[in-house]
Formats: sequence, structure tokens, C-alpha cells
Amino acid sequence: MGGLGAVNADAVGDAPSYAVCVDFDQLTVEQARRRDGTKWAQAAPDLIPAWVADMDFPVAGPIRDAIMHRVVTDMGYPDWPLEQPGLPLPQVFAERMAARYGFHPDPVHVRPFTDLNQSLQALLDVLTEPGEGVLVHTPTYNAFLMTLEAMNRPPVPIPLVPDGETWRAELPADPQGARVLLLVDPHNPTGRCFTRTELEEIADYADRHDLVVISDEIHADLVFAPNEHLPFGLLRPERTVTITSASKAFNMGGLHCAIAHIGSARAREALATRPPALYGQPSVLGVAATVAAWRECDAWLDGVVAVLDRNRKTLAQRLPAGWTYRVPEATYLAWIDTGIPDAATVLEREARVKVAPGTIYGAPDTWIRLNFGTSGPILDELLDRIRRAF
Amino acid sequence: MGGLGAVNADAVGDAPSYAVCVDFDQLTVEQARRRDGTKWAQAAPDLIPAWVADMDFPVAGPIRDAIMHRVVTDMGYPDWPLEQPGLPLPQVFAERMAARYGFHPDPVHVRPFTDLNQSLQALLDVLTEPGEGVLVHTPTYNAFLMTLEAMNRPPVPIPLVPDGETWRAELPADPQGARVLLLVDPHNPTGRCFTRTELEEIADYADRHDLVVISDEIHADLVFAPNEHLPFGLLRPERTVTITSASKAFNMGGLHCAIAHIGSARAREALATRPPALYGQPSVLGVAATVAAWRECDAWLDGVVAVLDRNRKTLAQRLPAGWTYRVPEATYLAWIDTGIPDAATVLEREARVKVAPGTIYGAPDTWIRLNFGTSGPILDELLDRIRRAF
Repeated sequence: MGGLGAVNADAVGDAPSYAVCVDFDQLTVEQARRRDGTKWAQAAPDLIPAWVADMDFPVAGPIRDAIMHRVVTDMGYPDWPLEQPGLPLPQVFAERMAARYGFHPDPVHVRPFTDLNQSLQALLDVLTEPGEGVLVHTPTYNAFLMTLEAMNRPPVPIPLVPDGETWRAELPADPQGARVLLLVDPHNPTGRCFTRTELEEIADYADRHDLVVISDEIHADLVFAPNEHLPFGLLRPERTVTITSASKAFNMGGLHCAIAHIGSARAREALATRPPALYGQPSVLGVAATVAAWRECDAWLDGVVAVLDRNRKTLAQRLPAGWTYRVPEATYLAWIDTGIPDAATVLEREARVKVAPGTIYGAPDTWIRLNFGTSGPILDELLDRIRRAF
Repeated sequence: MGGLGAVNADAVGDAPSYAVCVDFDQLTVEQARRRDGTKWAQAAPDLIPAWVADMDFPVAGPIRDAIMHRVVTDMGYPDWPLEQPGLPLPQVFAERMAARYGFHPDPVHVRPFTDLNQSLQALLDVLTEPGEGVLVHTPTYNAFLMTLEAMNRPPVPIPLVPDGETWRAELPADPQGARVLLLVDPHNPTGRCFTRTELEEIADYADRHDLVVISDEIHADLVFAPNEHLPFGLLRPERTVTITSASKAFNMGGLHCAIAHIGSARAREALATRPPALYGQPSVLGVAATVAAWRECDAWLDGVVAVLDRNRKTLAQRLPAGWTYRVPEATYLAWIDTGIPDAATVLEREARVKVAPGTIYGAPDTWIRLNFGTSGPILDELLDRIRRAF
């Protein structure tokens, strides 16, 4: 799995020993260090980075080939109308939702964005007013927390409270005037995959308070059995805006091609008041990569999920005693209470492992988010370092 | 020139005979028809398309290689801060402006958009009110005309009036309350490259009426000697927003990576009121391609401009007598008065050549815009067809 096949050595420069790695679960630190995105670029040469949410794996072969095909045939104006940019993404998204979940979004209501944070900002801009609160689980994905702060939309917390091996969400009795609930399911940073019962509870709450639910489902492809992802749009199509991208599961966070399915008529009408090209258009390369990911890469994805599934269990066996770790039901993110003050700084100094500090998710500084989206050898090295230090 | 070198045959499918064409000026209709963007996709098999503003040439080798390098190394989160997406584009743009024109835009005031129409809509949205006019040369690039209509910003015409072999612009005595002048230089569809004298006149006019000038300079790399492009920002840095992209000169209209240099403090302050990620982020592939285009592809560009220069002169020799054609000073667009009512429809029917009708630029229907961004053999075939029919 994960083989890249033949590549043009001229085009890849010093990358071939990374790119031609036959099995991504054999990837070494030395190979991964050739990656030059922010995850590795921001890590000193003796650090192992496990912070930003990228995996260390090369992209799937069909994605690489689809981009290359587009490059050598035609990167000119794509054959889509100005009023429906990103074709055939809406149809491909709808097909995938139907096949995987029996969810039938109308392609006409799917529109592209470059990334989920953009779509969130576009939606909050037209659906809410400055000063108005937004319901959101805590802890909270840091980029969304920054958006709420930058836009002066104070979070109205739905606390995720530790509950045995998992987490329990507590919807506030009073939504404090919020008209939007921002759902992240599977949840970042806890790795929760919300159950149907929990989602039904949110749906009833949304009905009671007439909420639009913006549902970030970008981790939906990274759910571990027997947990199952349930699109929120299946429960309350007319209240939901689903935002997602192939960028997470298929490891191309820089692709900047995302979609929103605007099930909510209120959201559609609000967006229609804005200039038609205001939010831009995805690249034809992004569309080609996303179509390949969603149509041709399920075998690659199965291989990745198997590695991540093993990794989450490895963490449970090997993290230091006394660290609180609830095995995630989805994602490649471990949400851990180390009990150590200023834990991320201490880990970087003592173990030479770079993790994301809990504080950026609104949690105490004893918490960390550790990214286990990597190979067995790299995870072993990371855990060896932690165990030597603590 | 234009050779593509070795390509991975598996990745390109049925494209190799197009992709490996050694000299893009030898390209045949049969090879070009393998292109699947809207230009060729919207043309029936017996039509030659000369409408939408794409050239028929493959992209330059360094662009193809830069994208491939990004694909096989790291498509994850790029190493740029959220508040300055698109690095190192601002720096590379500033370097190019300095080297080519002695123009020194501050990279801090450069921000990415996906395309020029997006940046225009973003700027008009924050700088003007619905119902407020926008000064713009007529005829007018059709996408911008659509934007003005969709946003209810009525055009305040600056007519381009035929004047011997060229065009003279007539600034209206009364700007009718407009606060923005939309400059397209080189001009689409006429192919004018405005002279320093003309631009100084616009600059004085902007001073007199306190205008922000949004200056689309996307065709600046396609100017024929002895004409010279002069960035408007060099004349009035503090009044200017320069919008551009490598997509036009380097033939990648679907890349959707563009930049705006916001010299105007008024425009900067207005944009700063909007949510920070509202306009999205370019793809890392778009950034890689643009950096390669602006840093490594000048030889390729020289080759293209030489072909276009010959083509514009070929048209002057071979278009039917009685058609009015002023040889463009820039671009690969010929703006022609055929004298034939409903000319585009008649050309498509009688000559099997697809051109853009003058009406979409606000001109009478005897006008057409003919795209000569193609090889000698294809242009010859196109002109043969026209001469047989008229």
C-alpha cells in the first residue's frame, strides 16, 4: 500500500527516496524529514513533529496521477460555468455521500471554498452579527477558535466532559441567543465520533432553538470500527451546512479545495446576497485531486486507517503511566492530559517531540494534542523519546 | 522552445502526443483538440475555437516540474502563517516588479486571491455601495462587465474611440460620483498598451476626483516591442490596487492563483474590516506554479511572445478586406469589426471558427474578439476557413 510507482527523477529533485517509499508504514524519520510543509519545516532537525494535523505519508498514486494528467493536458479555463465553479465536485461529493451513508445532498446546493475556515467565516459573516455567540464544543479546534475571536462571535460552550473511557457533551440549557451551532464531528481535538443518540440530541436542541448547524465533517473518512460516522445533514437536512474536504483523509492540507453543502435555505439565501465570485474558485488541480481521492483511493484510505487504528492502540500501551489518554474513535489526533504544567514546552525540551499545546484549544496547559498520523518506526521513535524523558 | 521533455506516460493517458510536442509553434489542430478545458470542450469536433482567452500551448517545463515536485514531496499545510497566506508569492511578485519595471511594491501589502474577478468583487464590495458607478473603459472585459451588473455598480464609460491605427480614451468630464476607476492595461479586448502619457492623464484624473484605481495588469507580460508596460502603481502607489496573476501569460487559466498589491491605504483599511480568511487561500500547487512561472520561465515567455507577435501581423495580412482590425500592442486578442451583423454566429456557421461576440463586451454585434494564442499551423487553418467563407 502507499507505493508511488515510477516518478520523474528530474521533477522531484532530492525527494525520490521519500517519494518511492514502497510502504508508507515503513517510512523513516530521515525520509519524512524531506517533507517541507509547516509540520516538518517548523521542527528543528533533532525534533520529531507531531503537532499540526498532517500525516507523514505521500499522497495516493491516483491523486498524483490525476494532477499530472491535468498539468500535461490543459490547465486553462475549466469547462464549468461561472455560476457553478468546481464541477464535477458537487456531483462527486453527492455520489460519495450516497454510497457511504445513504445521504443524498443536492449537488445544486454544493459550492466550493478553498478551506473549511473560509467557509465558516463566510457563513458566520452572513448568518450572525458581531457580538453574537456561537455554540461549539469545548475543547475547540484552534483555527475555529481563532475565527470566533477574530470575528467577535464569542463561543457558547458545549463542554465535552470526561466520562469513563470517552467524553460526554453537555448542551447548555440557555443558548444565549446563538443562532448557529458549530459541530465538528468527528471531533478535533478529542477524536470523538458522535453517536446517533448524541447527534439526535443536538438535532432536537437545534429544532428547539431554531439553529443552523454548521457541521465540519472533514475527519469522517478516518473513523475506526465499530464507530460509524453519521452525516448531520441526514438528520436535519434543512438546518445543516456540511463543510468538508478530501484534504484531511488524503493528506493534502495545502491543496485548498473544499466544499460546503448548503442544506439550510436560510444560509443559501444569506450567501446569495453576496457577490457571486467573492469566495473565489478552487484550482483545477485541486478539483482533479479531490475527484481522484473521492473516486479512486478507497484502498489507499483503508490502508491508512489500518495504520492509524494500530497507532491509537500503541499509544494506549506505551504512553507514560499517569497520562490520561482516551483512545480516539476517529482522526489521528490523541488528546492527552499529561498532568505536567506547560506540557508542550516540556515535551519539546525534554523529549524533543513537538506537540500542539492544549491551551490553543482552550484547555489547561497540562493537555496536549499529539498527532499519530505517521509510520510505525516514527511513532516508535517518538514514544521511545517520551518514555526516556518521563 | 516549449519542449516538455520526458513525461510519465501512465500519468498522462491519451495526452502524450500533445504533451511531448517539441515546439509549440508546430502544434496541430489534432493535438490541440486533446485539450479538455472549456475552450476546446465547448467547440464541436469540426470547429476551431478562438474564443475564451487561453492559448493552445502546453505549460512551460519548470511549471510542470514545480507542481510535480510539490506533489511528490509535501502537499500538507504550507509553511506560511494564517495571516500571510501564499508565501513566498508576495516576495516573488515584488522581485519581478522591481526587475522588470523598477516598481517596488511592499510585499506586506500583497495578498493572494484565487482570480482577478474575485479580487475585483472583494474590493468593490468594501470600497463602493450598490448603485454607485465604476469608471471603466468601453469595450469592457466581459467577466468584469458581468461583475458590475451582478453587484449593481453601473459602468461609467471611458470610451475607447478608434483613432487611426489605434484607440483614444475619452475620460468623462463628470465621473458621476464614482470613487473607483477600473483600469485594464494592457486592455482586453482591444489589446491597447496604454502609454505613459495616457496613464499620467488617468493618474491626474484620479487625483482630481480622489479615485482608487484597480489596475488589472494580467496581460503585462504579453506586450510587443516597442510598446512598454508601465505599472500604474509606479505613478500613483497610494491610489492603486494592482491585480494580476501568472495564469494568463503562462497559460494556466484554471490554476486560480492570483495576487493583489493593495497600495491604497483606503483599500487596505476597508479589506481589514472583513474576516481574515474570508477570501480563502491559494493552493500550494498554485503557489509553486506561480513561483516557477515568475522566476524560471522568461525564456519560454520570450518564445511565446515571438509567436504571438508574428500571429498579430499574420492577421493584418490575411483577414478579409473590409474587416477593421487594429493590430494589438499586447495580448493575444484581436478586436475586429467585421461589418457583418451577428458576426460571431455567422463565423461559427460559415467558417466553423468560434470567436467571442462583441456584444458580451458591450459592443455592437458586428464586432468579434478573436484569440490568436495558437501555433502557426492552427492560425493558418483558421484564416483559411475565414477566407474561404468571406
